Parts: sequence; C-alpha cells; structure tokens
Amino acid sequence: MSVPALIPFKPRNPKTRLSCVLELPEREKFAQMMLCDVVVAAREAGCEPFLLGTEPFSFNGLPVIVDPGGLNESINTYLEKNSGSLLIIMADVALASGPAIRRLITTKADMAIVPGTGGGTNAIYLSSADRFRVSYYGMSFEKHLRIAEECGLSCEVVDSFLIHTDIDEREDLVELLIHGKGMSSRYLHELGFVLSADKGRVRVVRDTSGTE
Amino acid sequence: MSVPALIPFKPRNPKTRLSCVLELPEREKFAQMMLCDVVVAAREAGCEPFLLGTEPFSFNGLPVIVDPGGLNESINTYLEKNSGSLLIIMADVALASGPAIRRLITTKADMAIVPGTGGGTNAIYLSSADRFRVSYYGMSFEKHLRIAEECGLSCEVVDSFLIHTDIDEREDLVELLIHGKGMSSRYLHELGFVLSADKGRVRVVRDTSGTE
Repeated sequence: MSVPALIPFKPRNPKTRLSCVLELPEREKFAQMMLCDVVVAAREAGCEPFLLGTEPFSFNGLPVIVDPGGLNESINTYLEKNSGSLLIIMADVALASGPAIRRLITTKADMAIVPGTGGGTNAIYLSSADRFRVSYYGMSFEKHLRIAEECGLSCEVVDSFLIHTDIDEREDLVELLIHGKGMSSRYLHELGFVLSADKGRVRVVRDTSGTE
Repeated sequence: MSVPALIPFKPRNPKTRLSCVLELPEREKFAQMMLCDVVVAAREAGCEPFLLGTEPFSFNGLPVIVDPGGLNESINTYLEKNSGSLLIIMADVALASGPAIRRLITTKADMAIVPGTGGGTNAIYLSSADRFRVSYYGMSFEKHLRIAEECGLSCEVVDSFLIHTDIDEREDLVELLIHGKGMSSRYLHELGFVLSADKGRVRVVRDTSGTE
C-alpha cells in the first residue's frame, strides 16, 4: 500500500545560505532539482509524494496543499486530520534513495526518524499521522524523540547517511558532488562545481570559465 | 563466527586538526576514548578488534600488530597473508554502533564499504581479505570501489550516518555531542564542550570556566 509523502517546499528565494556560491535563479532551480531527486526516491520507495507550500504553485503535476501558516502549524493541521500512515521528508535531502526511504516506511515501530546535520530532522515516518505532532526548527531531532515518548509512540532512529545529509551550506555540496546520482548533482556539475582536494578536508570550488 | 576487526591507531600526536580546540594531552586522551567507543561497537557486533600501529604500544590488552610502514603498505601486507574475513575500521568513527557494524559484516556481497566525510573510507568488510588491497588517503572511497571492480568483488555500499561520521575537525564534534553515547562524547562534555545554536548551523563552543 502506498504511503503519502509530504514534502514542504518553498519555491521563492530558497537556500539563502548558498547565496555565496549561487545566484537567486540558480538557487531556485537547484532547489527544484533537489526536490525532483527527493520525489524520485520517494516514488521508488513506494510513496506518493505531495507538496506543502505557503502559496499556490505547480510543480511537475504533483498535488500541492497550500497553507499560509508556519511549517509546524501547517503540518500539524494536516496530521490532526489524517489517521493513516505518512512520510514527512525535507525537500533538500537530495541524496535520499529509494532503499533508504524503504527502511523508514518498513519500520516495526510506530514511527521512524532520521536526524539531519546539526540535530535537525530530515525525515519522519508515522504509522498513524494523527498520533504525533511536529516541532521543527533548531535541534528538532531531540524534540521529536521527546514528543514520540509523550505520545506513547515507539520510535526507530534510522541510521542513514543519505537522508541525514541536508544541503544547506557550501560545504554540504561536497557530499552531493561525491555521492549524488540525480538531477541536482548533475546541475551542480553543469554550473562548474568541482571538488578540490587540498590538504585536509575536500572542498568545492566553482569554475565559471566554461559555463558562460 | 567472530570477524577480526583491524583498527589502525596512532597514539602519538593524533588528531592535529583538532589542535584549535584541544591541547596535545587532551587530543591523545580523546583519540583513545574514540578508539574505546569503536572497540566496544565492534565487539557488540561480534568482531574481535586488534590494533595496527607503527610502533609498539599497549591499549587495554588488545592485540597490537606493529608495522613501521605506511598505512596502505602495512594493511596490504596483512591482507596478503590472510584469506579469512576481515573488518577494517577507522579509530575515529566514534559514533559507530554494534548494529551499524553488523550491517557491514552480514552483507551478502563479497565486501561492504562505508564512505567517510569528504569521500574517504571509514570501514571496509572483506569476506576474503587476500582478494583485496587498500588505497587510503584522499578520496579513497571511489578508489576502493574501483579496486573492488578490478578484483572482481561484488561490493555493497552501506548507508550509515554513524560510520560515515569521522571526527577530524571542530565542526565534526557537533554530531558527536548530539548523538554520542560513549566515552568520547562524555569526555568532550567533561572538557566543557557544549552546543551553540545560533542562526544557521549548530556549532560547538568550549566553556572552560568550570573545568579548571
């Protein structure tokens, strides 16, 4: 049975922390390419993706729920009204794969969660949506574990590097360039991004000489 | 049947990229605490850990192989002489857990691998050690996939955030403080490290006021 997959998405001025390496139109396109990658992975896992946004927009024919409220408020409004299973996955986990998402939605627990970089939350699977409420922003992973406990839900923490990796800052592009197989990493390559392996950690640099 | 787990370890002046936040004796102790965490996880997974170093040292009664050669040379010398199964795991993957390591050593492929931050290699499981050779340093993950292919070995890439996370730089301490349950994260807490959640990504700061 197919699991609905809610993906919050902000089409306008997304990924501001990448402004140092991407112009606004590039950031918008890059965010869309990452969303495409997440949608493909969710479908491969057997999910039915739909988008949640604060204003009307259309994207590849996907169903869109418009709610002008904040992220937590609008997701919680949705949760209250839905008793079935649900995956909530962020639009910037561009490395997410079908098998990685399968591990979440096949959990034996009441819910499964994948933390994001810096203690955030990148994906939550709920066997019964209306038994949980979300509290994103800041170190939401610990908050979500606490809420699960308060709600009496068993919770599996799924150990996935691919879903753990959210793409917010320049340094995150490294992992996407190394491991990405989808549209977003292809787009970065097109824009001239390459890996630079000096001393210490690998970094990304943008070579614009060939992209004009 | 127990799988031998080779852990390369450098007791003297380790983790130089953490010099900005840790004094030399602290770095040495921190490296040992991380090693302890890896040893505990490996044993929990059913492995028998032993250490590989360039000079004689003793550590909690673990067997130590001393080889003054470089990392690749000394591991490859060991591989050539051993036809059984083997896990090679880095001493700084302090978040590694028993279940995460189990996923490697129970692979159905000839070998399994977990990439590290920036395209390195944090763990390799070989069902027959002498059929493979390692090539660490730089972006070794891609190199190891290529060597697997050259050697005719099927290879599973295991998607584990816990083993992917190696602790080399200050920013890596964030994930250890958030997710660590072992001795190394406890030691960081003792040293006064705390998380700081300002705008953007979470960072670590060291509060030395209470640790003198």
